[in-house]
Amino acid sequence: MRGLARWLPVVLGSALLAAAGPRPPAEDGYELWLRYRVVDDAARLAAYRSDVAALTVGGDSPALRAARAELLRGLGGLLGRPLPVDSTVSRDGTVLIGTPAGSPAIASLGLGPELARAGREGYVLRTARVRGRRVIVVAANRDAGVLYGAFHLLRLIQTGRPLDSLAVTAAPRVSLRVLDHWDNLDGTVTRGYAGASLWTWESLPGYLAPRYRDYARADASIGINGVVLNNVNGDARFLTAPYLEKVAALAGVFRPYGIRVFLAARFSAPVEVGGLRTADPLDAAVQAWWRAKADEIYRAIPDFGGFLVKANSEGEPGPQDYHRTHAQGANLLADALAPHGGVVMWRAFVYAAEIPTDRVKQAYDEFVPLDGKFRANVLVQVKNGPLDFQPREPFHPLFGAMPRTPVMLELQVTKEYLGQDTHLAYLGTMWQEVLDADTYARGPGSTVARIVDGSLFGHRLTGVAGVANVGSDRNWCGSIFNQANWYAFGRMAWDPGLGAAAAADEWIRQTFSNDTAVVRRVTAMMLASREAVVNYMTPLGLAHQMAYEHHYGPGPWVSGGRPDWMSVTFNRADAAGIGFDRTPAGSDAVAQYFPPLRQRFASPDSVPENLLLWFHHLPWTARLTGGRTLWEELLRHYQMGIDTVRWMRATWDSLAPRIDPARFDSVRAYLAIQAAEARWWRDASVVYWQSLNQLPIPAPYAAPLHTLEFYQRLGCPADVRKPRCPAIEEKP
Amino acid sequence: MRGLARWLPVVLGSALLAAAGPRPPAEDGYELWLRYRVVDDAARLAAYRSDVAALTVGGDSPALRAARAELLRGLGGLLGRPLPVDSTVSRDGTVLIGTPAGSPAIASLGLGPELARAGREGYVLRTARVRGRRVIVVAANRDAGVLYGAFHLLRLIQTGRPLDSLAVTAAPRVSLRVLDHWDNLDGTVTRGYAGASLWTWESLPGYLAPRYRDYARADASIGINGVVLNNVNGDARFLTAPYLEKVAALAGVFRPYGIRVFLAARFSAPVEVGGLRTADPLDAAVQAWWRAKADEIYRAIPDFGGFLVKANSEGEPGPQDYHRTHAQGANLLADALAPHGGVVMWRAFVYAAEIPTDRVKQAYDEFVPLDGKFRANVLVQVKNGPLDFQPREPFHPLFGAMPRTPVMLELQVTKEYLGQDTHLAYLGTMWQEVLDADTYARGPGSTVARIVDGSLFGHRLTGVAGVANVGSDRNWCGSIFNQANWYAFGRMAWDPGLGAAAAADEWIRQTFSNDTAVVRRVTAMMLASREAVVNYMTPLGLAHQMAYEHHYGPGPWVSGGRPDWMSVTFNRADAAGIGFDRTPAGSDAVAQYFPPLRQRFASPDSVPENLLLWFHHLPWTARLTGGRTLWEELLRHYQMGIDTVRWMRATWDSLAPRIDPARFDSVRAYLAIQAAEARWWRDASVVYWQSLNQLPIPAPYAAPLHTLEFYQRLGCPADVRKPRCPAIEEKP
Repeated sequence: MRGLARWLPVVLGSALLAAAGPRPPAEDGYELWLRYRVVDDAARLAAYRSDVAALTVGGDSPALRAARAELLRGLGGLLGRPLPVDSTVSRDGTVLIGTPAGSPAIASLGLGPELARAGREGYVLRTARVRGRRVIVVAANRDAGVLYGAFHLLRLIQTGRPLDSLAVTAAPRVSLRVLDHWDNLDGTVTRGYAGASLWTWESLPGYLAPRYRDYARADASIGINGVVLNNVNGDARFLTAPYLEKVAALAGVFRPYGIRVFLAARFSAPVEVGGLRTADPLDAAVQAWWRAKADEIYRAIPDFGGFLVKANSEGEPGPQDYHRTHAQGANLLADALAPHGGVVMWRAFVYAAEIPTDRVKQAYDEFVPLDGKFRANVLVQVKNGPLDFQPREPFHPLFGAMPRTPVMLELQVTKEYLGQDTHLAYLGTMWQEVLDADTYARGPGSTVARIVDGSLFGHRLTGVAGVANVGSDRNWCGSIFNQANWYAFGRMAWDPGLGAAAAADEWIRQTFSNDTAVVRRVTAMMLASREAVVNYMTPLGLAHQMAYEHHYGPGPWVSGGRPDWMSVTFNRADAAGIGFDRTPAGSDAVAQYFPPLRQRFASPDSVPENLLLWFHHLPWTARLTGGRTLWEELLRHYQMGIDTVRWMRATWDSLAPRIDPARFDSVRAYLAIQAAEARWWRDASVVYWQSLNQLPIPAPYAAPLHTLEFYQRLGCPADVRKPRCPAIEEKP
Repeated sequence: MRGLARWLPVVLGSALLAAAGPRPPAEDGYELWLRYRVVDDAARLAAYRSDVAALTVGGDSPALRAARAELLRGLGGLLGRPLPVDSTVSRDGTVLIGTPAGSPAIASLGLGPELARAGREGYVLRTARVRGRRVIVVAANRDAGVLYGAFHLLRLIQTGRPLDSLAVTAAPRVSLRVLDHWDNLDGTVTRGYAGASLWTWESLPGYLAPRYRDYARADASIGINGVVLNNVNGDARFLTAPYLEKVAALAGVFRPYGIRVFLAARFSAPVEVGGLRTADPLDAAVQAWWRAKADEIYRAIPDFGGFLVKANSEGEPGPQDYHRTHAQGANLLADALAPHGGVVMWRAFVYAAEIPTDRVKQAYDEFVPLDGKFRANVLVQVKNGPLDFQPREPFHPLFGAMPRTPVMLELQVTKEYLGQDTHLAYLGTMWQEVLDADTYARGPGSTVARIVDGSLFGHRLTGVAGVANVGSDRNWCGSIFNQANWYAFGRMAWDPGLGAAAAADEWIRQTFSNDTAVVRRVTAMMLASREAVVNYMTPLGLAHQMAYEHHYGPGPWVSGGRPDWMSVTFNRADAAGIGFDRTPAGSDAVAQYFPPLRQRFASPDSVPENLLLWFHHLPWTARLTGGRTLWEELLRHYQMGIDTVRWMRATWDSLAPRIDPARFDSVRAYLAIQAAEARWWRDASVVYWQSLNQLPIPAPYAAPLHTLEFYQRLGCPADVRKPRCPAIEEKP
């Protein structure tokens, strides 16, 4: 917007700023949600200073030292004064941390039942008395649990919660809470929009960059306990001795923070780096190679977590190259790791153009027959939906369909299809949607969460993985709000019942402030943001409409290539209608769901409207339950998305006096890009639909700004940091 | 080194640390040499606090505001207390800054003669009295000069100089002091080893990252007044409207810091983005296109500096594509820019495989006939040597050979051929060597410095350009010591007579401390470092022996491709001898130098030994002036290089208590890599020479660790941040 309209918000903003008090000092986002600024409410600060007057650490270990350092840093910052450390409890307000095994004082507190509930990784926070002194106890069964408890205590203070009468017992519901870094040897991060890989291989193992420790602290603060260091599009060199030495060095940095390292293993490694002539899982030499490789890995890294594998998917090598099954492939690796306690996370993201079936059905078809055929230390890793991390998909039908196999959830923390670094989209709502989804596998209440936490089918080996967007950018994630997705992923993996709103609330208070206006308005923005993206990109159940290479801008016209990668395959739009018929009359993907979902999805009257065009092909003129035609409803949803972004900008601007100027400006600039690009997505899509349906655009909706040819020719200059297209300015 | 030897330094280091006082707090290098830590000598601090008690700014402008902000930040930090600002001089110890035009108080001081000497960009620092008050005056003719003076004042304090009796008049000897950023649209930096491009095009012009201002401050602090934003391997899109808008935004950030922006212009732009059918400089439509383009640029950026051009070099388009000369090509652009005051920097880095002449002669052959044919606003930009930024080359014969043309110097700040990010190599000594070199163009004293500053031939348009290594890495340059090259480039461009040692001394004091041990030992390291690299890579005048693609490791065997890119072309090594005959019996490159250099270079007895094999082909058994054979001398020099690195490591380790742990560790880790890689360079070279000369290695020199085949097969995994090969560990 040129001219006055562009400058007016600045003038108003300056006036607002002039009227308010001093803004917080500029921040660059490096400290994430672990900023530990002095509590800015005087009464609360006084209370906390009374509650917390000293630290006593019962015992010594790397994890306890990490907890000690974090508490000194955090409490020192939050309370605005250094925290003394006493070797034994000697004053009121002591924070006493440790395990019963390491601390007689803690052992004497009678926390047996609570500690039993805390389990292997959990912790107990309690106010208590030790030798007559008022203490806050942070206790756990293992030192790593103490660290988690310490972070919980710090979070309570950061979010303004009272510390009197503490009675927290926490334990994670999921055992493997893993960040998958799709980092490559060359320093790029596939689908990463936050700079280069954090792992500077060339200077490992000799140089341990300080950033590795800050990364570990961030993960530990949200309960992440596993890191896959390398891309699933594997590079076998990661399994060779020079790289294992580097991996071991990283493992050493992470270990005190309760984090184990994993590696993505390339199935053809026995050939590529082993010099064997085959990688057939039934070949004795291959089996011996993996056993020896596992032994080698565990000599270097005694607590190595295991392998993540992408096999026979998008060109990656795998067991099917030798006419073996996924189970045989997974078991090959599992057997090599089992003596060492390692696990295999075997991805079910499989589909092939040669298979004529609807792409979203193929993984189910391939994996369900293998149920129960995997070793006990294998988890099948399943994306939240059956296509590929689209802004909205129904939950993956594999959830509930493999009762005899540990099935773990793969989420995408990096916003490959939701605006990458620039578009504000909080994904907690998407993840809550899938966790709360009822599969009906064992009747009502068979939620994805209960499958993922093992409770529905009685599995103890459980997991959630997130494809990370963490890189060398100063703010780690490419944008401030992208940090919220990392945060929410960890918290929701620890507790799938936490909920998107609660996670958002925690994040906002720790990342910005406890200012009520900030918390309320930013929570509203975050909770509305994902749906805004759905609306301006792919409303009403559309999916896979992005431009061909960069996945950043719109491309509903994309065609002419491999069908299961073409937008036209998924929108099925023509002169008469749009949408993919997945009912029995079509691909019958609905049949992969349990009743009553199967029937619910199969009828356009009962399918949730936000999945309408995922399951149905309808005429443009079909009248929907709201009374509007499908065409009008699409236009209405696109507009809702655009309007939501406009509202987010105004809401953010209203917070200018309450947010530090550096982070404020960066978010503001990206919201401006998002506004222009929401319009771009909408216009490009609408003008393409019009080229098919020849329908006019009814009032009050605007005509697209440009021609179809204009949008089709829009390129994206490559950018090693992130793909980017020039934004389209809205003409006034 | 495995085993005890590896741990011993750590043990000793810890003991040393335990004995000393507290180490300085960790730093990440972001603040470069502008750290402004409190003066740590109590007596000096007291004196400075007496000298400097307040700031008064005479006048107002963006540059004065920048100076004000820098002085408040710097003096506040150095003096350990906020500096009050008085609107007029009202107390002793006032720092009074401004120009006579803007400040009556400064006008009244009678600084006419000094200000005349200061000229357009210079400044005067003087103790004086204003209204009876003792003041420190920072005066200049223009506001940008005031900013330079402010940085000089801060530098004096940072380096512990006294402020009583100040009488400084400074003016740059060179008018264009330019950093050439070889940054690409996709965010990569060609020959950059410091992360991604600083310019985040996708969020410009709307978002001005705080880093842009810190970049401008760093440049201004060392007197850099021009920035070429984009790679000489040009991309015509930079000249299009969307990018000009972004460039204008950057120009706006830089302007208060006295920095103008330039662009590398792709000669074929009229075709690529203009839609013309030719780019012939004599075509009227082409001339009109460039005039219109210049008009468009200056409407957006009124103080745009001009164009940098690489034409008909390594595949870039240029006037020779139309059978026109470099002068005709340069004049085309010069005429378009002249009405706006812009300049053209036209690179003389030209050579072609099709031309049978010795590559190092070709630029001279092509440009000398064009002397005097360039417009007045064209500078011919000439690399320091006639090959390509090798660790050592003789000075470029074009210096002195084009008396009627402004000739500017192009240096490489980024260490493409000197170890990139990891090897410590201070280039100030290299640059002093070329600046002090006597061309004898007008008899003795015709130094390159006097050509570059215009004094030898009476030119007023003068320049020095540095190919930058600045990127998104937190420490800006990929390593702490690489920062020193940026620093020294700016200071030596401002004053070509400053000298490498003085620049190093300034940098060390500002970057680390004034601790005498630190200053002495680090100065020694820096002054020895470039020669160490020469010795272990390409001693005795060898050049262009690096591996083919990555330019990082050794490749003296490289052959089989385009001859002027092959190592064997430049080493001419065979069973009998080594070296390139550039005497009259050979390529006669010596003839391009003035007498007596021509004769001096032509004889192996008088040529400087460090250029021996640049100018001569000699038998391996030739006896040199030291009494050793050439083979022995080569081995001795390789070993000197390795020994110097070992000494640098020990020297650095001795400084552990005096350097903050984060920067200390990062340098230490890279020195370890450098030690291993110095051995790699030496061993690979020696084993290759032996494969030709069959000579044994005399005591006391060690045999190469591996076979020739091992070194030839060593690859470099690509890394977007920097190329890297696995380092070779020294076996004990």
